[in-house]
Amino acid sequence: MYAWNRQRPSVMPHHRYRPAHERVEVPRTGERAWPSRRITRAPLWVPVDLRDGNQALAEPMDPARKRRLFDLQVRMGFKEIEVGYPSASRLDFDFLRELAEPGVVPGDVTVVAFTAARSDLIERTFESIRGLPDVVVHLYTATAPTWRNVVLGHDRDDLRKLILDAAGQVARLAEGLPVRFEFSPEVFNLTEPDYVLEVCNDLTALWDASPDRPVIHNLPATVEISTPNVYADQIEYMHRHLDRRDSVILSVHPHNDRGTGVACAELAVLAGAQRVEGCLFGNGERTGNVDLVTLALNLHSQGVDPMLDLSDIDGIRRVVEHCNRLPVPDRHPYAGDLVYTAFSGTHQDAIGKGLAHHAARAAELGVPPERAPWEVPYLPIDPADVGRDYQAVIRVNSQSGKGGIAYLLGARHGLDLPRRLQIDFSAVVQRATDDSGAEITAESLWELFHATYIAPGERGGFASWRTAETAPGAHEFEGVLESGRVLRGTGNGPLSALAAALAGDGVEVDVLHYAEHAMDEGTGSSAVAYVEANVGGVTGWGAGQDTSVLTASVRAVLAAVNRLSPSGT
Amino acid sequence: MYAWNRQRPSVMPHHRYRPAHERVEVPRTGERAWPSRRITRAPLWVPVDLRDGNQALAEPMDPARKRRLFDLQVRMGFKEIEVGYPSASRLDFDFLRELAEPGVVPGDVTVVAFTAARSDLIERTFESIRGLPDVVVHLYTATAPTWRNVVLGHDRDDLRKLILDAAGQVARLAEGLPVRFEFSPEVFNLTEPDYVLEVCNDLTALWDASPDRPVIHNLPATVEISTPNVYADQIEYMHRHLDRRDSVILSVHPHNDRGTGVACAELAVLAGAQRVEGCLFGNGERTGNVDLVTLALNLHSQGVDPMLDLSDIDGIRRVVEHCNRLPVPDRHPYAGDLVYTAFSGTHQDAIGKGLAHHAARAAELGVPPERAPWEVPYLPIDPADVGRDYQAVIRVNSQSGKGGIAYLLGARHGLDLPRRLQIDFSAVVQRATDDSGAEITAESLWELFHATYIAPGERGGFASWRTAETAPGAHEFEGVLESGRVLRGTGNGPLSALAAALAGDGVEVDVLHYAEHAMDEGTGSSAVAYVEANVGGVTGWGAGQDTSVLTASVRAVLAAVNRLSPSGT
Repeated sequence: MYAWNRQRPSVMPHHRYRPAHERVEVPRTGERAWPSRRITRAPLWVPVDLRDGNQALAEPMDPARKRRLFDLQVRMGFKEIEVGYPSASRLDFDFLRELAEPGVVPGDVTVVAFTAARSDLIERTFESIRGLPDVVVHLYTATAPTWRNVVLGHDRDDLRKLILDAAGQVARLAEGLPVRFEFSPEVFNLTEPDYVLEVCNDLTALWDASPDRPVIHNLPATVEISTPNVYADQIEYMHRHLDRRDSVILSVHPHNDRGTGVACAELAVLAGAQRVEGCLFGNGERTGNVDLVTLALNLHSQGVDPMLDLSDIDGIRRVVEHCNRLPVPDRHPYAGDLVYTAFSGTHQDAIGKGLAHHAARAAELGVPPERAPWEVPYLPIDPADVGRDYQAVIRVNSQSGKGGIAYLLGARHGLDLPRRLQIDFSAVVQRATDDSGAEITAESLWELFHATYIAPGERGGFASWRTAETAPGAHEFEGVLESGRVLRGTGNGPLSALAAALAGDGVEVDVLHYAEHAMDEGTGSSAVAYVEANVGGVTGWGAGQDTSVLTASVRAVLAAVNRLSPSGT
Repeated sequence: MYAWNRQRPSVMPHHRYRPAHERVEVPRTGERAWPSRRITRAPLWVPVDLRDGNQALAEPMDPARKRRLFDLQVRMGFKEIEVGYPSASRLDFDFLRELAEPGVVPGDVTVVAFTAARSDLIERTFESIRGLPDVVVHLYTATAPTWRNVVLGHDRDDLRKLILDAAGQVARLAEGLPVRFEFSPEVFNLTEPDYVLEVCNDLTALWDASPDRPVIHNLPATVEISTPNVYADQIEYMHRHLDRRDSVILSVHPHNDRGTGVACAELAVLAGAQRVEGCLFGNGERTGNVDLVTLALNLHSQGVDPMLDLSDIDGIRRVVEHCNRLPVPDRHPYAGDLVYTAFSGTHQDAIGKGLAHHAARAAELGVPPERAPWEVPYLPIDPADVGRDYQAVIRVNSQSGKGGIAYLLGARHGLDLPRRLQIDFSAVVQRATDDSGAEITAESLWELFHATYIAPGERGGFASWRTAETAPGAHEFEGVLESGRVLRGTGNGPLSALAAALAGDGVEVDVLHYAEHAMDEGTGSSAVAYVEANVGGVTGWGAGQDTSVLTASVRAVLAAVNRLSPSGT
């Protein structure tokens, strides 16, 4: 048998780690439902940028940046927003107080305040929320074995009692207030499923959850520990076994240590989660919280309303970058600078054809292109949906082909190159980019085209020339060379008359292909002519540009002659 | 019922898109196997940075950068490396020729050359690989309906014939050469499963696959279109239905448009994939190819040998950033600058305790800490495994608590603060960071500690002082104030003698707690003393530092007096 896999054991000390299934076992009862389900509506999105995201910044937000991000989240359509950890930070406390001013928080928006399960912190939390019309108090405790044993020094029963005591205090302080309750057992995905279920069900009872006042059980993958299907199994287990299910909002809070935060959130929603906590563009501790923008646009791209306004993604990105002082990476889904860009020739060609097909289909349907069904190769969504233009879609480097080049010359400079000229010019471009190694802009592409085909050299030409139609179908060309000599020719059109004139000077020109078009709409616009000619046995292209269609075409022939004949005219 | 989800329909034109299941349906036969499986060994990793990654760069790699990346990949342990698209780029062609020089490619490394299914390109590909000892010729064709209809203008049968013709040509040109075959139907995940299966099985037969010369069927998620479980279903379908399964290497090639590339690769491996194509740190078209570094370290963190040497992740990152001219983002899994960093107080406290527990456990086991089993909160792997130190693990800002502060002062400055002093100082730090809003470095933390506790003011002190043990257990203190006045006291130790001397001057000092330790190992090292004192009814801390343990402790008392007494000594 052929040894197709010759990989060898590495130096990495992998034996220091245990697989997830040895750390926590998820009981199975019956067949998994989640792999067969589909997401048909958006979950409740809850941004935690102002708390979980903020605590992971080298420079946490000042009050102005906090407020700017909060206002952005309201404008985007978020209806539940975690705003801080008021008992742990004076700034967060003050921010809660700012939000309690009348009119700052819209009537349909709930704010969430985070607190550890400690008596003084809970009291301080309730001080911070005074006067707010709708609040979730979010109580968290570490429940995973390593945390219990190494960090807290509590066994299962001790810790359960501690949580229930804290939850009881929360309930007492909340009496008569517009407060709902949220609980997060940290690190949920490393905690014994039966233990976390027991604690959650205790709280559901203690907080007397009902459909009129549901509790939120938020199950964080605080640190990712396994492939995302395991998290989905864990969520499905909870979804099936939580008491008073219609009075519990099952929430998830994935991080991204293994690069699978988005997948964890999506599979968790398939498994029964109704609410997702995350951050804009995935800021957060270490590798970040799950990115709510990606999750929402993933739904959008599947025909499901994201329930958020992401129509100006660059505007959103600017605010978030300002507040976090961290850039959104170039390849970040939907928002990065490079994600709607194709450099490769094959992709450009397909996108070019796809865009043309899309325009035709929109016309057929009688709708504007930005409303027509979208199915363009290599572009999962129409960049216009998120406020991006097509400027950056096709960019040309040494890996690009004629499609991208033709697209750029068309979109930016109004040129519509004949197919064989596209091929000819793409070889010119590839030589130039192979040599420089760099991307070529649309502007440089035009300069290269101009230098190659329109003004191919400084060799002599006609000092002046004119054509005339001497009779219907009979054309005459007369040109004065710079030497003063005059060339004359006749033919059935001006170009054949020109060819005849050149033949009289010993330059054999055979025009094989000719095309011409206006470069813009409207009269007075420049025309460009393309000529493929055989000049003294050598075939090639020339181009000419002028407001006169005649002048442009004559120039195209002369340019071809200049390029191809050893001596020029 | 309470309206806990008040999200409203958005302005986003989601109705332009169809869900994946309406675009491609995966037949199901029997129960899914993949959700119950576990990854127990690394698949064959195939980096495509030099081809797919390279074509997505604004400035594709020059020959020197190409070679540097190739050599890095060989050193990391990759045994199959895609090196270019030689028929589309002169640079790629020349690079293949460079690799064909004797000794450049190690004997156990296979190079892969990529080509479209066009006769002239296939011929040029074979020109480029002359003399290479082990090559995979990688033939790709777009097979998805949109591509067939809009880009290629071929129906299913036409395209199938075209592919078989090209594959036949490849087989003929490969006769007698050390060449294996790979086929990629693009966009696999949008292609009808029965069609792609039919084409793959045709090629398996045409190329006469056998265990001695297996063919590679590479099934790209060229553009992600759905939650990753759907891709897993698609791969499992192929895994179950491919002919001559023992002669086929099932390969996957995920991209990351939905941010789920890593999940797609992992679930695909669960579903039967044996080989994964991707790029280092996820470079590639648009949102990038799947990141092989993350995939490999995900296995490592689960106790599975990644089969790659990632022990110097920063060295790898430097080469890749140099070659791609694109930075690895701060929050990129395993490699970003912030991914082993905790700013939040809770996390720091847990990490501090976890590291102490880890050290103790290693000592118990009699192994060095970098070999001991790892289970430290919030750190999925030991940063030392990838060559990172602990410098960046704990960083302090306004969100940090005493744990992180104590850790930094300990790890960087050799201080081991008493617990109540930790609490006292963390309030000082929080005031400073709340005001500045900025991160505080370990250096500034030390300066703040020094200014607060060691040298708390410029008020007068002793010009000189001395102590003496006048009899066993009888100590005397004599200090000369700057005014020239002399204070004397006696006690059962130098500090009580000092307290008595101060009492003689009307300053009542009660030392409540005292602790002292050397700041480094070895004699001659500096000692630091911490004193909690009640001075005239006010309680607080002072600290002193000196090579003499006695001087340090006296200074600590005097510092406390200086901080707490209205007039100082």
